[in-house]
Amino acid sequence: MTTTTTDLESWLAGQRRTVDAALERLLPREPECPRIIVEAARYSVIAGGKRLRPMLALASADAVAGRLSVDRDPALALALPAACALELIHTYSLVHDDLPAMDDDTLRRGRPTAHVVFGEGMAILAGDALLTEAFVILAREPASPPRGDPVLDARKLRTLRRIAEAAGAAGMVGGQALDLQAAQAGAAPLDADALRRMHASKTGALIRAAAAAGAIMAGADGPMLDALDEYAAHLGLAFQIVDDILDVEGASVDLGKTAGKDAAAGKPTYPAFFGLEASRALAARSVESALAALERERLAGQLPAIARWVVSRTH
Amino acid sequence: MTTTTTDLESWLAGQRRTVDAALERLLPREPECPRIIVEAARYSVIAGGKRLRPMLALASADAVAGRLSVDRDPALALALPAACALELIHTYSLVHDDLPAMDDDTLRRGRPTAHVVFGEGMAILAGDALLTEAFVILAREPASPPRGDPVLDARKLRTLRRIAEAAGAAGMVGGQALDLQAAQAGAAPLDADALRRMHASKTGALIRAAAAAGAIMAGADGPMLDALDEYAAHLGLAFQIVDDILDVEGASVDLGKTAGKDAAAGKPTYPAFFGLEASRALAARSVESALAALERERLAGQLPAIARWVVSRTH
Repeated sequence: MTTTTTDLESWLAGQRRTVDAALERLLPREPECPRIIVEAARYSVIAGGKRLRPMLALASADAVAGRLSVDRDPALALALPAACALELIHTYSLVHDDLPAMDDDTLRRGRPTAHVVFGEGMAILAGDALLTEAFVILAREPASPPRGDPVLDARKLRTLRRIAEAAGAAGMVGGQALDLQAAQAGAAPLDADALRRMHASKTGALIRAAAAAGAIMAGADGPMLDALDEYAAHLGLAFQIVDDILDVEGASVDLGKTAGKDAAAGKPTYPAFFGLEASRALAARSVESALAALERERLAGQLPAIARWVVSRTH
Repeated sequence: MTTTTTDLESWLAGQRRTVDAALERLLPREPECPRIIVEAARYSVIAGGKRLRPMLALASADAVAGRLSVDRDPALALALPAACALELIHTYSLVHDDLPAMDDDTLRRGRPTAHVVFGEGMAILAGDALLTEAFVILAREPASPPRGDPVLDARKLRTLRRIAEAAGAAGMVGGQALDLQAAQAGAAPLDADALRRMHASKTGALIRAAAAAGAIMAGADGPMLDALDEYAAHLGLAFQIVDDILDVEGASVDLGKTAGKDAAAGKPTYPAFFGLEASRALAARSVESALAALERERLAGQLPAIARWVVSRTH
């Protein structure tokens, strides 16, 4: 099956509507939660963004359903809560990363950052709330029947553990700590290898967990999961390289965040180490490796088109 | 069975050694995690504290085992990961609460707070790591056999959900948001009822979840869980009132934190609303209600003694 760019765009648009509606339903609300934390928690999530992690989780579930010859809609429904939880975790990481004590950014997704609007303390709490809510959702949804469904419970626990490990000290938070440490006065600058390791934790781990989460919820195991993990690892690297390239080339209005900031802050980037041309070539090779991993397990659906989109995107 | 203070102290000391050893094993470590986040995450946990929430979870599991006439040691082992996860969540909340953007405290558990030692950014990340690690532990431990154990999986999911709901925007984080909002310039001061609601979320929710978590892991359900929840709700109120009293009366060296700070910051406290005598009487009545809830379901073990200790403690 060949997927054109238009197919991908229309698929993404449809899934995005589903994810946004589910997020609206799953986010903290009054009267169970105080108004101020509801507003602060919702502000950054509703602002949007590419929703890359939810889309990967859903595309992964879709590909697994295709490979196992089962209906795609139930597989997507099983993966939807994990897709939403991943977006909440990604958003919490942005809210905390933007704080004055971290990257000190004032613009994100085209709007003032949460701490600019709600103050630093409330932004910290909003991030805490989003992270915690992600685990409420993963433990609660999709709902098991009253007496439980052993297969579903086992998948939920496995998915939750996979996502938590990727988000924690061995993954995303660990990568942010390395990034913060490298940015401190007097710290030795990261070399190319340390840069790759930092990104593999900071952004790569959650992207891999997204592909794994969708696949586990849809019933994947063994070599199929390994192939999707390999796909996502290559995809994550390509995504980061392109992010660095866009930071050098882009304008704030397209990115929805402050452009040129990494370079201005003296942060190491792929173009700074390898130049623009070699960085583009590295991103392209990563995508080829991602596609090869899929082919090995005859996984398809939207995943190949997503990998190609990652290197061709302009924002 | 009558439990004397000495019995309680010796039971607590033994369980504390078990919890501390488990925490040592379960906390983030090298080389999976970068050294800086390992150090920052461990710093505040190893500092100690009363370990009230783990002790409640274990005492609750112990009481349920006694009531169901099953062996106590396996029940305690089932509850131990939840006990550790609760302590990590409590510690993360202290690390974030102590930040300059929140309560701006420099002393905690007798040592400089995490942001004083590691910097604000790293303290935020250490809190994030502790919160996330709590869910890794809850999803992973106690380990299911390779093909899963449906009863254990169901209990783990239920426990995880109960704890996450109590820690999030509808519980602890929501309470912290109310506290922060009330402390802001120009905010209307909390009245006695709003103070009670704030504490019920900020500290009460996680204390209730601790009692519930130990009980669920040990196999409790229905009226037994309801009685333990009622016990813990009264206990949490008594604990908070006594905390306020100690803040007025205590010295920093006993508390291990800055004494008189709440009153100095103009924060509402129970003694400020009701006076010391009436506050003490309110705490004593709460403990009586907690004991009555236990008796209704013939739950005992260390839980009655813990309730009496909460009002008699001097730090």
